[in-house]
Amino acid sequence: MTTGAQALIFTLLDAGVEVCFANPGTSEMHFVAALDDVPEMRGVLCLFEGVVTGAADGYARIAGTPAATLLHLGPGMGNGLANLHNARRAHVPLVNVVGDHATYHKQYDAPLESDIEALAQWTHGWVRRIGSGASIGADAADAVAAAQATPAQVATLILPADISWSDGGEPAGPVDPAPPASPDASAVAAIAEVFRNGERAVLLIGGAANGEAGQRAADRIAAATGATALVETFPARHTRGAGVPALDRLGYLAEAAMAQLEGVEHLIVAGTGAPVSFFAYPGKASSLVPDGAHVHTLAGPDTDVVAALEQLAELVAPDVEPRLAQPTAVELPTGDLTVQNWVQVVAALLPENAIVSDESNTSGVMLPAATAGSPRHDVLTLTGGAIGQGLPVSVGAAIAAPDRPVIALQADGSAAYTISALWTMARENLNVTVVLINNHAYAILRLELMRTGAGTGGPKAQQLLDLANPDMDFAKVADGFGVPSSVATTCEELAEQFSAAVAAPGPHLIDARIPPLL
Amino acid sequence: MTTGAQALIFTLLDAGVEVCFANPGTSEMHFVAALDDVPEMRGVLCLFEGVVTGAADGYARIAGTPAATLLHLGPGMGNGLANLHNARRAHVPLVNVVGDHATYHKQYDAPLESDIEALAQWTHGWVRRIGSGASIGADAADAVAAAQATPAQVATLILPADISWSDGGEPAGPVDPAPPASPDASAVAAIAEVFRNGERAVLLIGGAANGEAGQRAADRIAAATGATALVETFPARHTRGAGVPALDRLGYLAEAAMAQLEGVEHLIVAGTGAPVSFFAYPGKASSLVPDGAHVHTLAGPDTDVVAALEQLAELVAPDVEPRLAQPTAVELPTGDLTVQNWVQVVAALLPENAIVSDESNTSGVMLPAATAGSPRHDVLTLTGGAIGQGLPVSVGAAIAAPDRPVIALQADGSAAYTISALWTMARENLNVTVVLINNHAYAILRLELMRTGAGTGGPKAQQLLDLANPDMDFAKVADGFGVPSSVATTCEELAEQFSAAVAAPGPHLIDARIPPLL
Repeated sequence: MTTGAQALIFTLLDAGVEVCFANPGTSEMHFVAALDDVPEMRGVLCLFEGVVTGAADGYARIAGTPAATLLHLGPGMGNGLANLHNARRAHVPLVNVVGDHATYHKQYDAPLESDIEALAQWTHGWVRRIGSGASIGADAADAVAAAQATPAQVATLILPADISWSDGGEPAGPVDPAPPASPDASAVAAIAEVFRNGERAVLLIGGAANGEAGQRAADRIAAATGATALVETFPARHTRGAGVPALDRLGYLAEAAMAQLEGVEHLIVAGTGAPVSFFAYPGKASSLVPDGAHVHTLAGPDTDVVAALEQLAELVAPDVEPRLAQPTAVELPTGDLTVQNWVQVVAALLPENAIVSDESNTSGVMLPAATAGSPRHDVLTLTGGAIGQGLPVSVGAAIAAPDRPVIALQADGSAAYTISALWTMARENLNVTVVLINNHAYAILRLELMRTGAGTGGPKAQQLLDLANPDMDFAKVADGFGVPSSVATTCEELAEQFSAAVAAPGPHLIDARIPPLL
Repeated sequence: MTTGAQALIFTLLDAGVEVCFANPGTSEMHFVAALDDVPEMRGVLCLFEGVVTGAADGYARIAGTPAATLLHLGPGMGNGLANLHNARRAHVPLVNVVGDHATYHKQYDAPLESDIEALAQWTHGWVRRIGSGASIGADAADAVAAAQATPAQVATLILPADISWSDGGEPAGPVDPAPPASPDASAVAAIAEVFRNGERAVLLIGGAANGEAGQRAADRIAAATGATALVETFPARHTRGAGVPALDRLGYLAEAAMAQLEGVEHLIVAGTGAPVSFFAYPGKASSLVPDGAHVHTLAGPDTDVVAALEQLAELVAPDVEPRLAQPTAVELPTGDLTVQNWVQVVAALLPENAIVSDESNTSGVMLPAATAGSPRHDVLTLTGGAIGQGLPVSVGAAIAAPDRPVIALQADGSAAYTISALWTMARENLNVTVVLINNHAYAILRLELMRTGAGTGGPKAQQLLDLANPDMDFAKVADGFGVPSSVATTCEELAEQFSAAVAAPGPHLIDARIPPLL
């Protein structure tokens, strides 16, 4: 006799889903109980659903395969939506399991009743309500395949409690995800002609192209044609550092991005779209494509973008090697921490093969330049703009790659959204070093207040952008959640604490007190 | 020249909305700046949207009028959904202001773009997208009136950034909310006949009837007819204690509720619906109405339920006085804290006219009995089952009633969802005493695991219900968020710390270490 819950977990595991990040409730109790029947499925408790979904995102960015979530009804999914939004924008595979009331119970409009499908559809992903134990295995296999389509997506499985607890669950074997579309050879050839015409061109890559192979192909093209190759503004996973082509990212600030694109006649996009301003500003254009520039799409979202870049490189740069970043020794700075020097400490001490979860926001503006010659590493960024993603993503990344050091560079304001991620780091003894950039402000909003033309703000406005009064002490908060912590106010302290934290197993939080950018 | 943002805030204030709980982003910067142009509108910063929406709920429960929120785009509203769900189930008025991209920017699908209307509709409330500065005042006035309809609801106003920042904003005067329907005299008379027939009856009240006037009428009816009057399981605001009729609440556990309703032939509901089980359990009925019992509705959700109860009381109990709870001196217990004795400490020391935000879950099972004869107080409960509501609600309640002591009785697991509410308590110097019941477990899920027939759980299941390894130290977490704290392990310590905290201005958190119920 197999329950629906057992069949579901067997099927997920068989399809390659090995971890379930969970914040369960009563309607998920049989799923929870069934975890003991499937020893290979790892259950990881998170204390808030935004940690669950962010961890599943971070896991997928590093593992390349989906994790499952386990969420409690509509409100539980509501709490998980912001990081599902980031996962959607990251195009990662994610199997989102949401428990629901028993089928016959829904008509009673019990207090937790709500429209789960509406929330699932909000993620622009794949959605299915499991209809029976007989179908549960096939539904789960379809969900895993749907999650791994090209582009990858959030696949939501709604699991009624009675189907979970009833016998008659039928596991199913894995379903192959639809393969990516092959590049269109004639489109590739046409774009090769664009590069050969000598007009100023930028090649903007994104998605899977932000890995090593895609960047090598992009840099060969750039080297051979004189074009500039750029990585999209907020990559889900950007492989970089010594030994990898040193492609810059397109700037977040429209002013910076427009400077990078100034005078460009051809913008070739591969694995991403034409760039747009993150927000609208009075009197500023929303599109970042220079007036008169032509936009060419080398590979759309359903296409194997790395193959497309490699085919293009074979056409325009058959004998050209990519230019690789050289290792750079960064000197350790000294004195009080500043926006300028803390990134040099990280750059100087970044361990080999690190995973950097970067939600340092304004405090991290100088990070990419500082770490360009650091040992090879992967940077995971805030793909969808919904803050509170960095700590959960680092949880998932650390579970996907237990042998790699994970460095979470985390702004204070954003940290407050999903701070209980620290507890899961402690519970699972994850190798995460959190550098909590504590500047006591929503510094980015001070900048945005000016950029939107709203001025510098009166005292009431400033109070809403200010995280002082009281200052948060993240070292104490971390201690409270079971993560060892320390406070750094100087480069020397940060360097010593960072080295020690990276060398020691388990998590550590450094509360780095750094004045705001403005 | 008036901007849209200024016109919006002027209109909200004119319609009686005096507080805005905010977690803004770039698209809300002009709203933030405009707060300085309207000194009477109080802006309260919360560090997470679930705190914003829960605080607005708590404010409305005490003030009786709506607060406004300020949320950042779809993901910000996503983070606020769980407590909007609780507010929906509480039937409180709430004006939910959600900033959106500029109208012309939406077509670009910038990273934070999403379907805000879909999320607003999920709350089953009123929704409008502001179309122009010329309409913004009228839209805001309509929203405040819609929020205050009967039943009250969440009214969402979607505010495009360009309408917010453009001149041409036109404020508008307040709109009267539609009054509640008057009771149906023939229905009241028919129900009077039911009470007179001598068959066993229960009168179950809810909503506005949980205040003093409704309970007085209900208890007169009960006293005159021999019926039992009960308050709904999870009232938004339940006035009780010495001098108020001592009506029991219908039990949360279906087993307990069915015992209260056993043998009932007539169930009269007023301001609430026929009771249903919170969750489904294998082999158990979803409806809690005993087989064969007749359900009669005295007043539906659109009706003035207090008036209906008073009319009914005049028919069946014209000369009967309500039976009021007598003040009871509770002896202070001694020794290590237990589920049994901590509630006696609170009962013995509860200050006059307190507001009790109760999210103590399993640890609070003995609270209602212990506090039945305590000084008069209002209890605010978890109306929608979405945990993480107690601390935010206490923030809003304390802002609505600065002269009343607010006591937040808060379970540890639930506290983790919205823990940054502590920071707002510190920032605003709110008179909130948090008794954090730290039992290191999702104790309710241990109970529910058994109740759902899933057994007691293997080691993996138990690990997902367990909040130990590591234990959370909420005293340290509170310190980190700027709230003074202490640890209590005995009744004597709790009593001393509770008395001192209630007597002192500003917030205090007592980390009360209490073994779990099971």
